Amino acid sequence: MTPETSDLKALIEKRVRDVADFPEPGVVFKDITPLLGDVDAFRAVVDALGDGYGPIDAVAGLEARGFVFAAPVALALGAAFVPIRKVGKLPARTLRRTYDLEYGSATVEVHADAFTPGARVLIVDDVLATGGTARAAADLVREAGGTVVGFSVVMELAFLNGRDRLTDVPLRALTTV
Amino acid sequence: MTPETSDLKALIEKRVRDVADFPEPGVVFKDITPLLGDVDAFRAVVDALGDGYGPIDAVAGLEARGFVFAAPVALALGAAFVPIRKVGKLPARTLRRTYDLEYGSATVEVHADAFTPGARVLIVDDVLATGGTARAAADLVREAGGTVVGFSVVMELAFLNGRDRLTDVPLRALTTV
Repeated sequence: MTPETSDLKALIEKRVRDVADFPEPGVVFKDITPLLGDVDAFRAVVDALGDGYGPIDAVAGLEARGFVFAAPVALALGAAFVPIRKVGKLPARTLRRTYDLEYGSATVEVHADAFTPGARVLIVDDVLATGGTARAAADLVREAGGTVVGFSVVMELAFLNGRDRLTDVPLRALTTV
Repeated sequence: MTPETSDLKALIEKRVRDVADFPEPGVVFKDITPLLGDVDAFRAVVDALGDGYGPIDAVAGLEARGFVFAAPVALALGAAFVPIRKVGKLPARTLRRTYDLEYGSATVEVHADAFTPGARVLIVDDVLATGGTARAAADLVREAGGTVVGFSVVMELAFLNGRDRLTDVPLRALTTV
């Protein structure tokens, strides 16, 4: 770890607050809104999410909090922004992936024409938790013709082992809890 | 209208595609994803959304497509980014507004501590339609202690008369259909 990444990690941890019992009793939620309220910290995070991957054609962001980071990363890299959305939100023809949750399942979509064939795609989200959405997103990008060059998140919740579901994708977490 | 705003309007209209029968038969949906895929157009839109309001302390974005524009505007202006979310998503103490839809109602929230008192706040969304969410957002910002300096949207659907519900807020639409 370089001094720069160590400093960024400390800055993120200072700007993420723990909220007890959300969304349900016994869970401690990592609230990133204070980070978004500190423009210097937010800018440093955006830079670090997109740095060092080489040329990127498109940045795919996961609804909804992922949009907040992925759209600025796309602009910073001079890349297209592509939204990966919850089912039923994208109007044109889509590709879909359904994945299991603790109770039930969820489905995400991307526009079928979102990527030019072979496009180098960086996927960006706020938090890597169980990896269900992340795995679905990587599969969708590939099915739509893109090459997943990397997956960047602000924070990894390591105790949920999401990383184990993304072993075929270069994964970057700016901080790990 | 200056030549610059006329050019931007033409660029936006070129990059928004009509999708018939979405979300329901007979409706023509204005799909902004091609605009997000053109980084030069996206950057021009971000600049125009935030330009000329004077000093801005915070940019509030409306979930979910509003986040895509509002977060980059906040970074461009050196302002805090504040998410206004659908009910149940924000973890800390919130303020809420419920508004009527064609069938039923919807509720949006903001963190009660999101703004410093008197903060100059710009609200950003992708589309102004009936104005229900927009009105709720402006009311929430004020209740949370902010001053609404402006409301910027990429596109106004003028036939839905949303503007009539925002007569107390400086409203900017980069294009009108």
